[in-house]
Amino acid sequence: EDEEEKELRQRFRFMAPPVSGLRELRRRRRELRSRMELLIMETQAEVCRALAELDPGASFAVDSWERKEGGGGISCVLQDGEVFEKAGVNVSVVSGLLSEEAARQMRSRGKSLKAKDGKLPFCAMGVSSVIHPKNPHVPTMHFNYRYFEIEEADGTKQWWFGGGTDLTPTYLNEEDAVHFHKTLKEACDKHDLKLYPKYKKWCDDYFYIKHRGERRGIGGIFFDDMDSPSKEEVFQFVKSCAKAVVPCYIPIVKKHCHDSFTPEEKLWQQLRRGRYVEFNLVYDRGTKFGLLTPGSRIESILMSLPLTARWEYMHTPPESSKEAEILEVLRNPKDWVH
Amino acid sequence: EDEEEKELRQRFRFMAPPVSGLRELRRRRRELRSRMELLIMETQAEVCRALAELDPGASFAVDSWERKEGGGGISCVLQDGEVFEKAGVNVSVVSGLLSEEAARQMRSRGKSLKAKDGKLPFCAMGVSSVIHPKNPHVPTMHFNYRYFEIEEADGTKQWWFGGGTDLTPTYLNEEDAVHFHKTLKEACDKHDLKLYPKYKKWCDDYFYIKHRGERRGIGGIFFDDMDSPSKEEVFQFVKSCAKAVVPCYIPIVKKHCHDSFTPEEKLWQQLRRGRYVEFNLVYDRGTKFGLLTPGSRIESILMSLPLTARWEYMHTPPESSKEAEILEVLRNPKDWVH
Repeated sequence: EDEEEKELRQRFRFMAPPVSGLRELRRRRRELRSRMELLIMETQAEVCRALAELDPGASFAVDSWERKEGGGGISCVLQDGEVFEKAGVNVSVVSGLLSEEAARQMRSRGKSLKAKDGKLPFCAMGVSSVIHPKNPHVPTMHFNYRYFEIEEADGTKQWWFGGGTDLTPTYLNEEDAVHFHKTLKEACDKHDLKLYPKYKKWCDDYFYIKHRGERRGIGGIFFDDMDSPSKEEVFQFVKSCAKAVVPCYIPIVKKHCHDSFTPEEKLWQQLRRGRYVEFNLVYDRGTKFGLLTPGSRIESILMSLPLTARWEYMHTPPESSKEAEILEVLRNPKDWVH
Repeated sequence: EDEEEKELRQRFRFMAPPVSGLRELRRRRRELRSRMELLIMETQAEVCRALAELDPGASFAVDSWERKEGGGGISCVLQDGEVFEKAGVNVSVVSGLLSEEAARQMRSRGKSLKAKDGKLPFCAMGVSSVIHPKNPHVPTMHFNYRYFEIEEADGTKQWWFGGGTDLTPTYLNEEDAVHFHKTLKEACDKHDLKLYPKYKKWCDDYFYIKHRGERRGIGGIFFDDMDSPSKEEVFQFVKSCAKAVVPCYIPIVKKHCHDSFTPEEKLWQQLRRGRYVEFNLVYDRGTKFGLLTPGSRIESILMSLPLTARWEYMHTPPESSKEAEILEVLRNPKDWVH
């Protein structure tokens, strides 16, 4: 019928068959889990198509993988293209049993969870992506949208969403910064005017490289443990955010991917890539959780690292240079839209 | 007099005046602290001179720095030379008050320490170094020798030494591996035949990149919390190890620094540099401790990172290639001397 046909069409636009299987997703289509899995598959396909269109010589390698403890994922990676140095868009849908300890770590607020025999059935799914372009005038972009469910001993289900989209430019372009934040703000404002300011600040706080006193980039939005006002409303909010990824980023890539640049600008980009690696390996909760989780797919987790990075001892850009300009914003985050 | 003259001569061969001041070191020359500070200064100078001799076009930048909480250090860095991509040799001598929590973290065995008003006077000093050569046929080398003292509430002083020297080649050269381990074994054997086998294994266990199932390199020796048989004997052992740094590494650099190499070999080196970064940022206790310690000098801690590194998604060397050969040894450490 119509509904089924529509889904079938959709399926062919996915990068690979969904982890839970299309028939199963169709069977329990009213459940939020299924709708979220379809949303992350759709987002993956949308973003990959938009990127591939800008880098016609390159193409995405698509790997479907299984996790022996339950579930699996689909990793799409474009490497060493004309426009993109490394672009990864990863979907994972995993389930199984968590120890109380692991469950506590998973939830940033650390709510207490009552387990049966010390184990908690859980389900975690998400789409996550990092795009590192070649041209130093095109910023790196990261996004991640995820959903968790944990079942307690008495059968109560805890659930929450998390996610965010943020930008890491090598050089500051105010127009781009405003466009990026404005697009995210519009997505948030449709749901609640309080969301953008709150999640903008959370983003600045989260992507903080403490030992450098710098943020990783110029921010965006970030949230975790979101479980109100209702499952449906949070899902609709997450959907708006996911739909905003392409419009907030792709115009910036189009605008700058043919900009000329100097070897010095490329070098500064490489040093900033080094900072990106520092944040991801030292602070990022998702990466750390992934590296410590048995059975996780390392290549998909470390897909976020740039193709190349550089560390120079005591590198300090000259005062009033373009390099010093972006550092200033990374040290003291600005409000880009009001 | 003679003794003083000798010390004066020594002083001029140091890279910079010692943190504690030469007069003070001379005044309390019988104390182990002073002898250890002289040893680490001497080691720094010896290693820097040996490296500079091999890379005549380049020279070491020498920075003396102070730590506002007490003590300071001397960082010597040679960057972008002909032979060395980045070579850092760092001395630090710091003292002050530790929280019980920090003291516990400092000591790997986690001995209980009784503090007065929750604070413990401590003194920590060491020399640490990472040498990243340009040529992929010259291995990266790391060493670190350190001494700690903590004073408990009742006036008891806990003290211990730690350290090690290890090699990270891009390609396996068995002759070099044997020379390196043999030189370390000889330094150990002078003190106790049990030391080399024990510390060789500790090194393989410590430099383990768990999420990759690989060691960082082909090992060497590593030890921590060494506090027996006596302060004097452990100091003599540490001195032998420090004196072995130049003879275990410099001949390997000399032998290969003019070897020809292909772009593919350079690329493999860059991928291995990526693994080096992963180990240092995710696992290394010293780096993690440094990044979390207020007032520590970040540039000196992160001096250990290579100038450049690379991460490719799903890179797997072909079977029976030279790249697969070194991976095999990193996955299954070998005994190089018996």
